[in-house]
Amino acid sequence: MKKLVLLRHGESQWNKENRFTGWTDVDLSEKWIEEATKAWKLLKEQNIQFKRAFTSYLKRAVKTLNVVLDQMDLDWIPVEKTWRLNEKHYGMLQGLNKKETAEKYGDEQVLIWRRSFDVPPTPLDKDDERSPFQDPRYAEVPENELPLTESLKECIQRLIPCRENQILPALKKEETILVAAHGNSLRWIVKLLKNISDENIVSLNLPTAVPYVFEFDDNMNLVKDYFLGDPEEIKKLMEAVANQWKK
Amino acid sequence: MKKLVLLRHGESQWNKENRFTGWTDVDLSEKWIEEATKAWKLLKEQNIQFKRAFTSYLKRAVKTLNVVLDQMDLDWIPVEKTWRLNEKHYGMLQGLNKKETAEKYGDEQVLIWRRSFDVPPTPLDKDDERSPFQDPRYAEVPENELPLTESLKECIQRLIPCRENQILPALKKEETILVAAHGNSLRWIVKLLKNISDENIVSLNLPTAVPYVFEFDDNMNLVKDYFLGDPEEIKKLMEAVANQWKK
Repeated sequence: MKKLVLLRHGESQWNKENRFTGWTDVDLSEKWIEEATKAWKLLKEQNIQFKRAFTSYLKRAVKTLNVVLDQMDLDWIPVEKTWRLNEKHYGMLQGLNKKETAEKYGDEQVLIWRRSFDVPPTPLDKDDERSPFQDPRYAEVPENELPLTESLKECIQRLIPCRENQILPALKKEETILVAAHGNSLRWIVKLLKNISDENIVSLNLPTAVPYVFEFDDNMNLVKDYFLGDPEEIKKLMEAVANQWKK
Repeated sequence: MKKLVLLRHGESQWNKENRFTGWTDVDLSEKWIEEATKAWKLLKEQNIQFKRAFTSYLKRAVKTLNVVLDQMDLDWIPVEKTWRLNEKHYGMLQGLNKKETAEKYGDEQVLIWRRSFDVPPTPLDKDDERSPFQDPRYAEVPENELPLTESLKECIQRLIPCRENQILPALKKEETILVAAHGNSLRWIVKLLKNISDENIVSLNLPTAVPYVFEFDDNMNLVKDYFLGDPEEIKKLMEAVANQWKK
């Protein structure tokens, strides 16, 4: 069986403070090592031997990946980093506390952002210091592809070349692939693989640092998918993510 | 100025125990974080912005690199890992304490191994559990290139494609490159860049985790090279490496 494992990074400082992070390169909270330890232990129990890994340009994903690979004695495998796996860009919301956002913009607007597949938050100005146009790491990304805000739909759009040119060819060639990324950038894989509708994908809440395994036959048909770990605990973690929006 | 920075990994468990490591994938000692911290602080003071990094398939180099990049907020830069940057393969010596080796094989033989550019230690058997033929990470390396022992000359030979196809093109294209690797695999760059003779290169002892900077003009001529840090301390560290062979 070919395996694709999705791993959302451990808790970041801003996850903890319940602030919109998006493309802000915040570090992990003190809880992350414990979470990453749980993740690599679960992966080790399954005796999964990754051949290649993909991650974003953001340190919370890269560091989660590095520690998991190290503990699995897989420091040596190739890691491809791409801005396309970054979290959804939250535009002007970046830095705001999620509860503050609800208070500031009102429940109705928040509901639109929460439930909407294609309504993006207010964009950043191009010369805002938070803008990716001001960050050297994005210097080689074509200007027309660089976002100042994103809807979930736009986030999925920019992930398509990554899926087509990087992840699927790797999965076809090799057996086991790890993708360490973000809540929203991982949703697209789940959406595509499980044919989840635009309406329903917005309510999928991936918990941090819980490995999510997809198994495929040789013709790349999805055979089954499952989280590693205690189902009750995972359910609680998913509910906690969903509740972050509540005042 | 284009810059190439060489960084030998922090102290490994076997450095500490004074054992021949070679391709054995031992972890770092408890001292390494302190060493890596010294390294990234020196690099940060210089305001060096690496664009790309290269490292070996061995965790002591990968982990040293990861922590330096993280502390420099450069988690996102591309990292290329290659077996060609691995430490020199020490054949049957791998695992032996350096002093024990001198006692077992005699001072004369040790002197040959120490001073010789082209005499390799006794090779491992292909089916020895320490052999790279038994290790899945080398499965894609052509059999005729996979060593069971290496002289320094052979180690340099297998590094040539890495220099020609990976490091030099990157340095020509980009400005600043970091290579995190091993005592012997880094010697070849020093040898080539500074035209050091076969006889003299064997007595160059690179200290662990001290950044070694090479600056080039636009025509790729070497302008100057220097270690970062306190010269007196670096001299002592180099002497300590040289003395590891002594009984």
